[in-house]
Amino acid sequence: MTFIDKLKSRWQSADSLLCVGLDPDPTRFPAYLRERDDAIFAFCADIANATAPYACAFKPQIAYFASARAEDQLESLIAHLRQQHPQVPVVLDAKRGDIGATAEHYAREVFERYGADAVTLSPYMGHDSIEPYLAYADRGLFLLCRTSNPGGDDLQMLDVAGERLYERIAHLAASQWNRSGQLGLVVGATYPAELARVRAIAGELPLLVPGIGAQGGDVQACVYAGRTADGTGMLINSSRAILYASTGEDFAEAAAAAARRTRDEINRYRHP
Amino acid sequence: MTFIDKLKSRWQSADSLLCVGLDPDPTRFPAYLRERDDAIFAFCADIANATAPYACAFKPQIAYFASARAEDQLESLIAHLRQQHPQVPVVLDAKRGDIGATAEHYAREVFERYGADAVTLSPYMGHDSIEPYLAYADRGLFLLCRTSNPGGDDLQMLDVAGERLYERIAHLAASQWNRSGQLGLVVGATYPAELARVRAIAGELPLLVPGIGAQGGDVQACVYAGRTADGTGMLINSSRAILYASTGEDFAEAAAAAARRTRDEINRYRHP
Repeated sequence: MTFIDKLKSRWQSADSLLCVGLDPDPTRFPAYLRERDDAIFAFCADIANATAPYACAFKPQIAYFASARAEDQLESLIAHLRQQHPQVPVVLDAKRGDIGATAEHYAREVFERYGADAVTLSPYMGHDSIEPYLAYADRGLFLLCRTSNPGGDDLQMLDVAGERLYERIAHLAASQWNRSGQLGLVVGATYPAELARVRAIAGELPLLVPGIGAQGGDVQACVYAGRTADGTGMLINSSRAILYASTGEDFAEAAAAAARRTRDEINRYRHP
Repeated sequence: MTFIDKLKSRWQSADSLLCVGLDPDPTRFPAYLRERDDAIFAFCADIANATAPYACAFKPQIAYFASARAEDQLESLIAHLRQQHPQVPVVLDAKRGDIGATAEHYAREVFERYGADAVTLSPYMGHDSIEPYLAYADRGLFLLCRTSNPGGDDLQMLDVAGERLYERIAHLAASQWNRSGQLGLVVGATYPAELARVRAIAGELPLLVPGIGAQGGDVQACVYAGRTADGTGMLINSSRAILYASTGEDFAEAAAAAARRTRDEINRYRHP
């Protein structure tokens, strides 16, 4: 089963477009967890178990593990997700970008070592920087397109022969870069007009959409802009607003409640 | 001492613009080394010890460590480099690119966990994606500008208001993005005309230049295009041609000889 098929199946079975972002910050864990050697794993696994019913995907962000020397806990976490929640695809947010043998090593890290279903990549180095990942035919790649931060304008909004650079990326990802059908795009919820542009350009491509919750993106505007005709097509990510809904011992229950509320809010708008 | 000062001092004291790239591939190690649990560390440390006299910098590529679950060996390697070769700056080639709290975690990984003097970054997400690294005032950042691969054309050669995208990056890195003087640029040796353009735009900025050796860039053309008025300004990287000059037990001596030859070839052209 390919990543795209797994994702489509999950959108339907969970009736959810919510992606739960796993950005573990130990300073915000409940005290009893912080003591554990595997606190990062334990926190994320508890969050995932509590929020899985409302999630179309999980998205661990590798920087939070790497800064804490916790690659082993990321391995254990993804193994746990694949075993306990095999129907929920895992997108490893790594924003890699390199070429040739180096890109092959990054692809091996993401897909073999960690066993992720999909990965985020930067498009700056061009088509040959994504090719080594395409060798894993059952996995998915999300290319950065229009990011949710203000500085995203610096390059992404530049005019290139009558279109914006982010539109060029969307065109490439929907056509010659995507012969194998493995691509998706990252488009911030903070720019709904541009999200709508990307949807218009990119057909049915899955869009990974960060920026609701802590970053302030509006759910209604984002769903209206990014949904496909059948009311799917998006992985709308929320990290901090779910993970730290409570920083007490009830963190997992609070996360489940926040995930359910967010899933329901998204669903209110996704069927026209 | 800042990264830039350390680099300038090293250019002079070693009389070298050669950057030794550390891309460890265990399948190419001599057999007796492959047996060791810390083979990657041992190989890279032997290479570094043998080539240090000819090197202005070392550049470990993190993908080779990550795909092999060898982050601990990368930590040991950089600690070894800083202790045994404190005058040779270490550039961690990681091509990170993210925003906000996530970028802070990547910066912590690179500068605190690994203790690198400088890092490579992608500019696609804009100015706020590099800010968290600038908080480490004594470290350096090399932004991808014009990369050595054919696919680099896809974005970097696009025309944006009369200049190429890579020229725009060079302008930004030489002006408003570089108020603290910590920036350099990555420009491939395979495109000497564009390397000359970047030098014309970016003044004295240090240029990290991959693409000689295995990738086929011409040393003479690259030095003529990229040198500053005083015959420095570049970190000309060679990885495979040095690391695997021999795959026998004489690998370190062969690497030293290859590094010395490359250093000398570069020096033949750098003083007009």
